[in-house]
Amino acid sequence: MSIVVLNGANLGRLGSREPEKYGTTTYADLVARIEAVAAELGQDVAVRQTDSEAELLGWVHEAADTGTAVVVNAAGWTHTSVVLRDALAQVDAPVVEVHITNVHAREPFRHHSYVSAVADGVVAGLGVFGYEAALRYLADRGVR
Amino acid sequence: MSIVVLNGANLGRLGSREPEKYGTTTYADLVARIEAVAAELGQDVAVRQTDSEAELLGWVHEAADTGTAVVVNAAGWTHTSVVLRDALAQVDAPVVEVHITNVHAREPFRHHSYVSAVADGVVAGLGVFGYEAALRYLADRGVR
Amino acid sequence: MSIVVLNGANLGRLGSREPEKYGTTTYADLVARIEAVAAELGQDVAVRQTDSEAELLGWVHEAADTGTAVVVNAAGWTHTSVVLRDALAQVDAPVVEVHITNVHAREPFRHHSYVSAVADGVVAGLGVFGYEAALRYLADRGVR
Amino acid sequence: MSIVVLNGANLGRLGSREPEKYGTTTYADLVARIEAVAAELGQDVAVRQTDSEAELLGWVHEAADTGTAVVVNAAGWTHTSVVLRDALAQVDAPVVEVHITNVHAREPFRHHSYVSAVADGVVAGLGVFGYEAALRYLADRGVR
Amino acid sequence: MSIVVLNGANLGRLGSREPEKYGTTTYADLVARIEAVAAELGQDVAVRQTDSEAELLGWVHEAADTGTAVVVNAAGWTHTSVVLRDALAQVDAPVVEVHITNVHAREPFRHHSYVSAVADGVVAGLGVFGYEAALRYLADRGVR
Amino acid sequence: MSIVVLNGANLGRLGSREPEKYGTTTYADLVARIEAVAAELGQDVAVRQTDSEAELLGWVHEAADTGTAVVVNAAGWTHTSVVLRDALAQVDAPVVEVHITNVHAREPFRHHSYVSAVADGVVAGLGVFGYEAALRYLADRGVR
Amino acid sequence: MSIVVLNGANLGRLGSREPEKYGTTTYADLVARIEAVAAELGQDVAVRQTDSEAELLGWVHEAADTGTAVVVNAAGWTHTSVVLRDALAQVDAPVVEVHITNVHAREPFRHHSYVSAVADGVVAGLGVFGYEAALRYLADRGVR
Amino acid sequence: MSIVVLNGANLGRLGSREPEKYGTTTYADLVARIEAVAAELGQDVAVRQTDSEAELLGWVHEAADTGTAVVVNAAGWTHTSVVLRDALAQVDAPVVEVHITNVHAREPFRHHSYVSAVADGVVAGLGVFGYEAALRYLADRGVR
Amino acid sequence: MSIVVLNGANLGRLGSREPEKYGTTTYADLVARIEAVAAELGQDVAVRQTDSEAELLGWVHEAADTGTAVVVNAAGWTHTSVVLRDALAQVDAPVVEVHITNVHAREPFRHHSYVSAVADGVVAGLGVFGYEAALRYLADRGVR
Amino acid sequence: MSIVVLNGANLGRLGSREPEKYGTTTYADLVARIEAVAAELGQDVAVRQTDSEAELLGWVHEAADTGTAVVVNAAGWTHTSVVLRDALAQVDAPVVEVHITNVHAREPFRHHSYVSAVADGVVAGLGVFGYEAALRYLADRGVR
Amino acid sequence: MSIVVLNGANLGRLGSREPEKYGTTTYADLVARIEAVAAELGQDVAVRQTDSEAELLGWVHEAADTGTAVVVNAAGWTHTSVVLRDALAQVDAPVVEVHITNVHAREPFRHHSYVSAVADGVVAGLGVFGYEAALRYLADRGVR
Amino acid sequence: MSIVVLNGANLGRLGSREPEKYGTTTYADLVARIEAVAAELGQDVAVRQTDSEAELLGWVHEAADTGTAVVVNAAGWTHTSVVLRDALAQVDAPVVEVHITNVHAREPFRHHSYVSAVADGVVAGLGVFGYEAALRYLADRGVR
Repeated sequence: MSIVVLNGANLGRLGSREPEKYGTTTYADLVARIEAVAAELGQDVAVRQTDSEAELLGWVHEAADTGTAVVVNAAGWTHTSVVLRDALAQVDAPVVEVHITNVHAREPFRHHSYVSAVADGVVAGLGVFGYEAALRYLADRGVR
Repeated sequence: MSIVVLNGANLGRLGSREPEKYGTTTYADLVARIEAVAAELGQDVAVRQTDSEAELLGWVHEAADTGTAVVVNAAGWTHTSVVLRDALAQVDAPVVEVHITNVHAREPFRHHSYVSAVADGVVAGLGVFGYEAALRYLADRGVR
Repeated sequence: MSIVVLNGANLGRLGSREPEKYGTTTYADLVARIEAVAAELGQDVAVRQTDSEAELLGWVHEAADTGTAVVVNAAGWTHTSVVLRDALAQVDAPVVEVHITNVHAREPFRHHSYVSAVADGVVAGLGVFGYEAALRYLADRGVR
Repeated sequence: MSIVVLNGANLGRLGSREPEKYGTTTYADLVARIEAVAAELGQDVAVRQTDSEAELLGWVHEAADTGTAVVVNAAGWTHTSVVLRDALAQVDAPVVEVHITNVHAREPFRHHSYVSAVADGVVAGLGVFGYEAALRYLADRGVR
Repeated sequence: MSIVVLNGANLGRLGSREPEKYGTTTYADLVARIEAVAAELGQDVAVRQTDSEAELLGWVHEAADTGTAVVVNAAGWTHTSVVLRDALAQVDAPVVEVHITNVHAREPFRHHSYVSAVADGVVAGLGVFGYEAALRYLADRGVR
Repeated sequence: MSIVVLNGANLGRLGSREPEKYGTTTYADLVARIEAVAAELGQDVAVRQTDSEAELLGWVHEAADTGTAVVVNAAGWTHTSVVLRDALAQVDAPVVEVHITNVHAREPFRHHSYVSAVADGVVAGLGVFGYEAALRYLADRGVR
Repeated sequence: MSIVVLNGANLGRLGSREPEKYGTTTYADLVARIEAVAAELGQDVAVRQTDSEAELLGWVHEAADTGTAVVVNAAGWTHTSVVLRDALAQVDAPVVEVHITNVHAREPFRHHSYVSAVADGVVAGLGVFGYEAALRYLADRGVR
Repeated sequence: MSIVVLNGANLGRLGSREPEKYGTTTYADLVARIEAVAAELGQDVAVRQTDSEAELLGWVHEAADTGTAVVVNAAGWTHTSVVLRDALAQVDAPVVEVHITNVHAREPFRHHSYVSAVADGVVAGLGVFGYEAALRYLADRGVR
Repeated sequence: MSIVVLNGANLGRLGSREPEKYGTTTYADLVARIEAVAAELGQDVAVRQTDSEAELLGWVHEAADTGTAVVVNAAGWTHTSVVLRDALAQVDAPVVEVHITNVHAREPFRHHSYVSAVADGVVAGLGVFGYEAALRYLADRGVR
Repeated sequence: MSIVVLNGANLGRLGSREPEKYGTTTYADLVARIEAVAAELGQDVAVRQTDSEAELLGWVHEAADTGTAVVVNAAGWTHTSVVLRDALAQVDAPVVEVHITNVHAREPFRHHSYVSAVADGVVAGLGVFGYEAALRYLADRGVR
Repeated sequence: MSIVVLNGANLGRLGSREPEKYGTTTYADLVARIEAVAAELGQDVAVRQTDSEAELLGWVHEAADTGTAVVVNAAGWTHTSVVLRDALAQVDAPVVEVHITNVHAREPFRHHSYVSAVADGVVAGLGVFGYEAALRYLADRGVR
Repeated sequence: MSIVVLNGANLGRLGSREPEKYGTTTYADLVARIEAVAAELGQDVAVRQTDSEAELLGWVHEAADTGTAVVVNAAGWTHTSVVLRDALAQVDAPVVEVHITNVHAREPFRHHSYVSAVADGVVAGLGVFGYEAALRYLADRGVR
């Protein structure tokens, strides 16, 4: 596995609630789309989601130990989790932060991210396409 | 023309200065890359750069009047220009904000963007690939 | 089940510690009282407590999926958990935020709640009676 | 009289304006409802409303002198009146702060209350039921 | 009466004190001038002044109930009175906020107005002409 | 009358409540003490108290019109009343601000006074002696 | 020329975009209306608009040198341009700041104006009538 | 010695500089006046001045050890010296903070005092009479 | 067991990542060192680490119930976890907060700790020796 | 050319307006003085002024490309222009920031400079001599 | 001498005042304890105390010049002295900051230390044992 | 003596420590350079340095009394000493503030100076040449 796509709390419910914010794509659709893009790009990708911060940290640790690139949508933890930041800081491979919605245009508390400072880049507001953008960026950097 | 890529102040000097921040790609390289991607995607793209806020506003007005999508890297004006925000608010077609560097990981005054609230999405820190990401996003939304 | 009462971290220890803040009612007493009031009001209530944010999110998701009203005392997470706010935002049934103590009269960091903006109302400082107030409010709105 | 319900500025107009915020219950309905609940609970209640801060202070002083419990909806003064806070601080009997709307979910200047720190508890966003909740709380503490 | 001009605390003393700030026009002059302009414009105007917040609220309530437009110079209450804001929010007819001095160029605490957000517009620093501007604006909108 | 001593909201209740903060001297004691000191100093003093901001403004206006010195304990209005500040700014005779308690050592919102900037001086925390200090200061300036 | 009306960035597009904010009056209508009012008042007026800050500065310099009164709607530069403020500070003739919308009721960054402190007065939210108010104010001060 | 009057930095130069702020009384005059008042009141007073924070601390320590009351004008250290606050906190006898000018009406950095929270009271803006007020207050508390 | 040493998120990875910040001591080394010191001091110590906030809370609850002293390095939760603070507040035995790095010299968000206010003391920046310092402190207080 | 002296907006009007702030030296005097000093020091200097940010950026770019030292008085742009900062950051030769007035003693918004962090040094308040100081500094560093 | 223990203002009075904050250990006890621990550890230690910032700076300079490690309890200067920070920044040997009380749990102004950023580590709240912890840490790093 | 150059804490150590910040010029070199420049300019200069705030104040007082111009590098006291500001405010002769490093580009707490508001001008970041700039400025104003 060369890339792990990590989705944080509530994202497993994508498409079932608040479609005006997050669109009608379901989480299953999202996974399928990511896998399809990865296949096209020849990338070995795993897509995961959890509502447990501890589980998310474990996945980040695993990526740090195996040199795996990380695409991370930390959802609400983006704005509150220092432990996630500290874990991601240990990842030497590229890290891309993705948000489905344009967090910069929402409530002020969503304008600050603990993740950004330890990520290579940030994609926000491009909907589920944001994940594709992240994968293509990694491909462009030679991560396959 | 379906898409205009607008680059703000100092970006014409890309590649000649501060490569540790902005990379070694020159502005000509950037234009070439954008045009190549657009060609692949079948998009009719114009790439422009200016150090004059007035000229930038004029281009945004033109996009607003012609229903052209906008990819905008407003450089330092991102953080200071209310007039740019007001101009972009008039664009009905999609607007994507791009930054070559990860502005969220730089000085605090670069963390706020007047553009974000009137853009569909934001891409930062993916280097010049960020422009490609923006074009592919627009293609994904059917802008060609 | 028409109503779920969700208690966050440390609340399982009610009555055993810091009685000058939280009173001498034990958590078992609290559950019994809530169940008694619910019985009187003809409400089908479940009372839960967890020290795991992930488990709490799961219960909120379940309420969102089943149209169950939520009475939530998020304890310390009230002031820090964006993921909880995002989960509660998906609940269409009424949501009531309860605090045993008067959080508005304690340390400044307890004056802000991420929950309030997505709740219908807030009850604070009425001791364990606050839960009864929430149930009666729901009954008044026809939730049984 | 064991309990006085004090309503501040503009509340006499309840039901005639901005029903999307405050509901369609009129002030007369509110008084009737409070009196009905008090009757059920065996409480001796007086319900008052004033647009004069001085008159409100006088009623609080009277409550302080007679050991009367206070249910207070100070409306806009909640956020601005130090003199009200100082008057309420002299009341030894229980004080409950009530807001019809969920002030915590409205403009930021409504998030701070000068009253809360000198009240026993706060009820907000439960509509006119909030007054009933306050009375029942007082009954639960033996105030009749 | 189609328009009520409401003047807040201390304004009855216009002309007698601090002429370097407020000019030498007396309050009686002000009333006369407003009435003359109104006569010219065919408007039915009442001009009132009070040092009592309660009385001011009463006049706003009356305007709300009778569909009367309001020109309001709330003087020092502009910066402190949430109850005034809440009362004015109930007025469906146009509301114009007037200040004789340029409050934006005075002490910082005069830069924020609780009234502005519920007014149609604001006129400041034009001296007593500001009232005339407000009346002419109302005439322009057809209020006579 | 050469000096008017103005006491704001709640001060009429001095001595009956919260003696740990304000001491056991009653308001009647206070008036007597002020009158005794004034007699000793040969000053013509009037001592007033009100819970009505409007009444307080009226007294300040009267002082401004008659060249009377003002000793003012505005109580809670100290921290909130711009209209009081604006009224006091019209007084040409000396103005002394008095607080019985040491407001600088209490809650942060009591550290700012709208009155101070328009007063000659401030006395706080000297208990009821503060009024005597103010009178003696006025005497020292020749106000009798 | 006795008065110059200066309009900043984007205002040339009035009426073509965002009519819900700025109304349907076009920029040409605006010019016509200003000229008509000026004619009625016997004022010699020039109306200008630019998207170039440099050009705007030049016009202000010209006004400073010729003793011309200035009516200025600096649009987005209102909130960001210190150089404009410094230029206007050199104008001895009256300066009136105009905003079509009620900036005080919009985003917080629109609540501060660098222009106000060097203007005589401010008119906001009266729509295009605001310009007429400014001209009438100048006429009232004898500027023709 | 029952009372020590401690004057901080620059106060020894009273009367020789900036008379518009501090008056024309010289430091020698000040000492003489204090001694005269003390004599009248039967108080055993020492008046000291230093530009050395260390010397000031020593005097405070001495007062703490001998049960001497302190009248302290810490001048600029008022706003910056935590060590002075910590020293004064050890004084059990009364402590009165005096300022010749009305610090509350000067630059914002003079509005906060590290001394006030550990003083009994504060006198500011009464000129050199402030020292007399402090002595009389101490006399009133029986310090002679 | 008389003392429990609790390590928060990411600390299990000590020594494997970012040695420039945390040194080359591995977590196993850390445990061994703590146990060796404890043995020398005759203390009955348990050393634990978890990436799960819920598990950490459980251990704190256990300490509270058994009168066990706590040495806690909450890592990133130090700065964000109110629930941890609330749990530690229930511990009557001594609590010592330890940080391997000098958090006071790192990013501003690491300068505030929710733990400190409920701990007896804090040791930061002494590397892994900080744990030894904590144990020796407890020994000095008689905890063995 | 070894040194370019760049003057921002409004500086071309030096001497004609606000002499109490900027003195009576005209811009022509300033240029002459700079040229005279440069001649004395054997420096090849060009002095420029513009009201156009774009033109200023162009001159900075030219300096960056030619290794020319920069003396820059950015006037009002000092406090607002991120694009200027970004341009100056590309200059490897020495950069000296000059202000005629003591900006640190004027309005608070003039206390922050976007230029300072990318300049070698700052000279403010020395009047037009500040330019001479900058040239002499450059000469001292061997720039001729 | 390999280590100098520097104590700031008021610390010479340890044990004589405010024992509820600082304990009953006298300063002489403190010195004795430090010397005893140093003897046990084979360290050559000097313990000093001063109420003079200048003297403290001199001792730090001496340490910088002689390669001596510093244990510093700067007392109130911790929060205010930039000159102390600048002096300590010149010390190449280890620097440990010690506070007897838990400054992080006291007034907010004690939460920031100018010393911490130039120290290796910080020990707070462990009482006089904190000095022992510092010495043992230095011993652990080989300082004897 | 017409000019006194006053250097604050730690500056006597110039050249011996932190040369990357302050350069390799020693304090003796600095004095020699200043004296040489003064000789060239025909100025009667005294150069002093102290680590004692009290001594610095004394020198400023002396300058105030003798009409001597002051060049002051207050080092760390720049940012913290109100007493120094108050002393310098008494100097009628010109005062120039000098900093060797560019304080505006260092830590935020170095961006504010208590000295600047009472100085004529500020020179920062020009290294030891800054002193020469100050002397030449004084010469330019005729101080010899």
